Amino acid sequence: MAKLTFVIKCPDQPGIIAGVTHFIKENGGNIVYIDQYVDRENLLFFMRLEASFEELSASFYEQFEESISNRFEMNCEIFETNRRPRMAVFVSKYDHCLYDLLSQYKSGELCVDIPFVLSNHADLKEATERFGIPFYHVPFTKDIREKGEAEQLALLKKHQVDFIVLARYMQIVSSALIDVYPNKIINIHHSFLPAFPGAKPYHSAYERGVKLIGATSHYVTEDLDAGPIIAQDVTQVSHLHSVKDLISSGKELEKVVLSRAVKKHVARKVLSYANRTVVFH
Amino acid sequence: MAKLTFVIKCPDQPGIIAGVTHFIKENGGNIVYIDQYVDRENLLFFMRLEASFEELSASFYEQFEESISNRFEMNCEIFETNRRPRMAVFVSKYDHCLYDLLSQYKSGELCVDIPFVLSNHADLKEATERFGIPFYHVPFTKDIREKGEAEQLALLKKHQVDFIVLARYMQIVSSALIDVYPNKIINIHHSFLPAFPGAKPYHSAYERGVKLIGATSHYVTEDLDAGPIIAQDVTQVSHLHSVKDLISSGKELEKVVLSRAVKKHVARKVLSYANRTVVFH
Amino acid sequence: MAKLTFVIKCPDQPGIIAGVTHFIKENGGNIVYIDQYVDRENLLFFMRLEASFEELSASFYEQFEESISNRFEMNCEIFETNRRPRMAVFVSKYDHCLYDLLSQYKSGELCVDIPFVLSNHADLKEATERFGIPFYHVPFTKDIREKGEAEQLALLKKHQVDFIVLARYMQIVSSALIDVYPNKIINIHHSFLPAFPGAKPYHSAYERGVKLIGATSHYVTEDLDAGPIIAQDVTQVSHLHSVKDLISSGKELEKVVLSRAVKKHVARKVLSYANRTVVFH
Amino acid sequence: MAKLTFVIKCPDQPGIIAGVTHFIKENGGNIVYIDQYVDRENLLFFMRLEASFEELSASFYEQFEESISNRFEMNCEIFETNRRPRMAVFVSKYDHCLYDLLSQYKSGELCVDIPFVLSNHADLKEATERFGIPFYHVPFTKDIREKGEAEQLALLKKHQVDFIVLARYMQIVSSALIDVYPNKIINIHHSFLPAFPGAKPYHSAYERGVKLIGATSHYVTEDLDAGPIIAQDVTQVSHLHSVKDLISSGKELEKVVLSRAVKKHVARKVLSYANRTVVFH
Repeated sequence: MAKLTFVIKCPDQPGIIAGVTHFIKENGGNIVYIDQYVDRENLLFFMRLEASFEELSASFYEQFEESISNRFEMNCEIFETNRRPRMAVFVSKYDHCLYDLLSQYKSGELCVDIPFVLSNHADLKEATERFGIPFYHVPFTKDIREKGEAEQLALLKKHQVDFIVLARYMQIVSSALIDVYPNKIINIHHSFLPAFPGAKPYHSAYERGVKLIGATSHYVTEDLDAGPIIAQDVTQVSHLHSVKDLISSGKELEKVVLSRAVKKHVARKVLSYANRTVVFH
Repeated sequence: MAKLTFVIKCPDQPGIIAGVTHFIKENGGNIVYIDQYVDRENLLFFMRLEASFEELSASFYEQFEESISNRFEMNCEIFETNRRPRMAVFVSKYDHCLYDLLSQYKSGELCVDIPFVLSNHADLKEATERFGIPFYHVPFTKDIREKGEAEQLALLKKHQVDFIVLARYMQIVSSALIDVYPNKIINIHHSFLPAFPGAKPYHSAYERGVKLIGATSHYVTEDLDAGPIIAQDVTQVSHLHSVKDLISSGKELEKVVLSRAVKKHVARKVLSYANRTVVFH
Repeated sequence: MAKLTFVIKCPDQPGIIAGVTHFIKENGGNIVYIDQYVDRENLLFFMRLEASFEELSASFYEQFEESISNRFEMNCEIFETNRRPRMAVFVSKYDHCLYDLLSQYKSGELCVDIPFVLSNHADLKEATERFGIPFYHVPFTKDIREKGEAEQLALLKKHQVDFIVLARYMQIVSSALIDVYPNKIINIHHSFLPAFPGAKPYHSAYERGVKLIGATSHYVTEDLDAGPIIAQDVTQVSHLHSVKDLISSGKELEKVVLSRAVKKHVARKVLSYANRTVVFH
Repeated sequence: MAKLTFVIKCPDQPGIIAGVTHFIKENGGNIVYIDQYVDRENLLFFMRLEASFEELSASFYEQFEESISNRFEMNCEIFETNRRPRMAVFVSKYDHCLYDLLSQYKSGELCVDIPFVLSNHADLKEATERFGIPFYHVPFTKDIREKGEAEQLALLKKHQVDFIVLARYMQIVSSALIDVYPNKIINIHHSFLPAFPGAKPYHSAYERGVKLIGATSHYVTEDLDAGPIIAQDVTQVSHLHSVKDLISSGKELEKVVLSRAVKKHVARKVLSYANRTVVFH
């Protein structure tokens, strides 16, 4: 038996759902779950559909492309539902997000393979290896920037990485990497974007005297901290919180928001367009 | 142009979505929005679907019943999307939920008609009439219970009421009323059910020393405070809260949760089964 | 019996609490509640203290000033705890915050007197008068700006207003008004400041594709939307929300956040300094 | 320099705060932070006070007892503020709370010493030892119950454990243990108590069709899941959640709530009485 997940974006027009569901039925499939959304302003259609098939015909994918995908001018990805994507984790010196991701991976809550963790510092080598995961130390400074990028790309290619999680990786990611992984690099920013982009957001939050601090997980684009937002959340703070307390409270939040975004991505429930995301439930 | 909302429950089987969407397309309809869910444990299929039609054929409803509804053994309701349901509000002496509903009605946030407010006390007559809505005082005691019920039913019938909101109506609703309005009487209970059912939940919450208090909006069934839950929420409390403070904090919450449930019901997004609800987004 | 609330700000130094509490005890007072905070960075001391006295000596206030207030260089306000402050409400055309404040006032949840509601439009006259509260229509355009301001100030003075709530009052408040009511004009801004200050924040939030929208209540200062924040909260949104939906969801939030801030102010629990607030529980 | 934290419970009466603060000042102390609360119903006084002293006189504790503690009939504990309490963790087979506690310990977010982790199963031995913490496997069945208890008590005594965290320890704790550690055993129950006490709360929550699931951290008493509540929180769920999904969502929540409770306990901010808690901010 085959289980497939279809992730579809296309211009809106009548008949798409009828067309897709009819095709699946004719090919012996049973629809398990369907999520659909139309952006009326931009007349765009989005759908995520899970279906199970007793047996897939040899020409299934070809036929789908010919009779459905081309007809509706779709951008369509079809995944084997149960295949675990391969996730690389980039870190710097902060360990809270790393521990959370690795713990959830170990507990079976995060359905991915993790070929390696990479860092520009050596600090988290031991923490990573405790979980039985390879750690690569790839230094990164102005002078050896190109060398570092090349090394990163080589590792990602060698290990057939599907997507990258920046778990408080404090470096700006290169265009080369973004080109290879468009909407496939997930960052956690420690503020409620668009408030306080850039460095030291907790210091800025303290200065402004806010009563909530936030965290934002988003896909990385060329514009710093301005890519499509996947998940956001906040936590209450008060005058009692020093900058240090904000940083500490924020860690809990960063973990939760990053892991929520990663799980949505892994479930192929995040569809990006026009610097926004559709995130299905 | 006609806009219809289909609300469907039926046993799960392959081909339902394909069948419905194909039928709508063949009849000149365009699907605007689709929500779907399958309860795998009980093999039940749920769908809410909005579609617009340039023109509805005279036999549309009949054909739908014959070729779709009967074929899939559906429990299917079809609503004109833009028709405002008629909502009666039952109150006792508390005014906060009443004020909130009437304010939202006046602001255009609540898309219903309100033929009347009914109470077993006269206290909220003036508050109701301030909003230009008729108020009926129907006393209710042990002795005149049957008389009261008859009067209620007569008013509901006369005003063609579609559903009833118990906005802190402190009386137990009669079986006769529940029979006429199955899953159409919405109550707000001032606790996080199933904790603290029955009378004086804030007193019980205080006694237990909980750190959150809740409110639960549910459909009324024969079993007290045990009907299908539509919406729930909580708010933080602490040792600083006396019973009186809990009651006061709770009022804010009751308003929010009740209004959320009412809006979901009005949008026909709540589907009940097996003492549970499917609530579409 | 007298009940007093002391609200104290002063430079931090050893012995303040001992000094104040000793003085109160010597004068026959019993401390009912104490909240205290020290900003270690700026070495500032904040305290809010409720005490009850069988009888206040004629020279109590004078003695407090001499032996405590002057000694510790305090900025100290002493309120009769049970005196209801007089609150003016300024509105424009939106009614949701107005309805909420007036409903809570009627329900006894908001312990203030409301001498009047003022607006630059006549739209909410009827809504206000339904609650038995006088309504003043003070037009406000470029040409009659000074006339409008003078009229506002005259009304505020005549009615001995203690503080002003801008319940979605869409005008910029004049410096003259701010001078007379420093940290006594409470605004509700419909975004999570400092994100999206200024006009049309829901449109900006939609453009940015955020997953939470916020509301911020703050004291009005000369800098637009940049005054000390009293309360903030957020609510989840998704790709399903159009700008219109954001505006609608936001209304619920604006009501809740504004009313929370107003209640804290009324309880004299908000202490401002350095464009920040201490908000006691 | 000495930093002390005073945690005080006593019958309410005038002059307590003045008495304590005066004593501290006379002994060369500076009050850094004060939290105070009076339960008016039961006329009980609670205070937590941090003070720093250049030098503590040899007889400080004795004098405090004589002139303050006895005078006001206090139950008073005085802690060296910076001393890290010794925390034992009891687990069964679930690893998510254990990982979270150990990760936070490693990150420096949890200011305790952890002499050992104990379990009735061997499963989490490796996970524990990864963090460099000793693991004891103490089997526990009906037959060897007494032996197990004795072994537990011996380990706790030997390692001078101050308090115990049951991080999803699925065994009922013996009276002997509770006697030795009154209000010093912290449990996490995977429901919003008092809803769904006992075993399998997620199954019960599913059956009832709730829209929120909760977690409750409380001190262990003789009555199962009925001890004083320290922290509670909830997370939204919907019809989409199977029992398995509830369990998975709940894990995130359990971690957060347990860690919040443990941190409050470590900061000596939790005061228990009458099966309730005062939890200072």
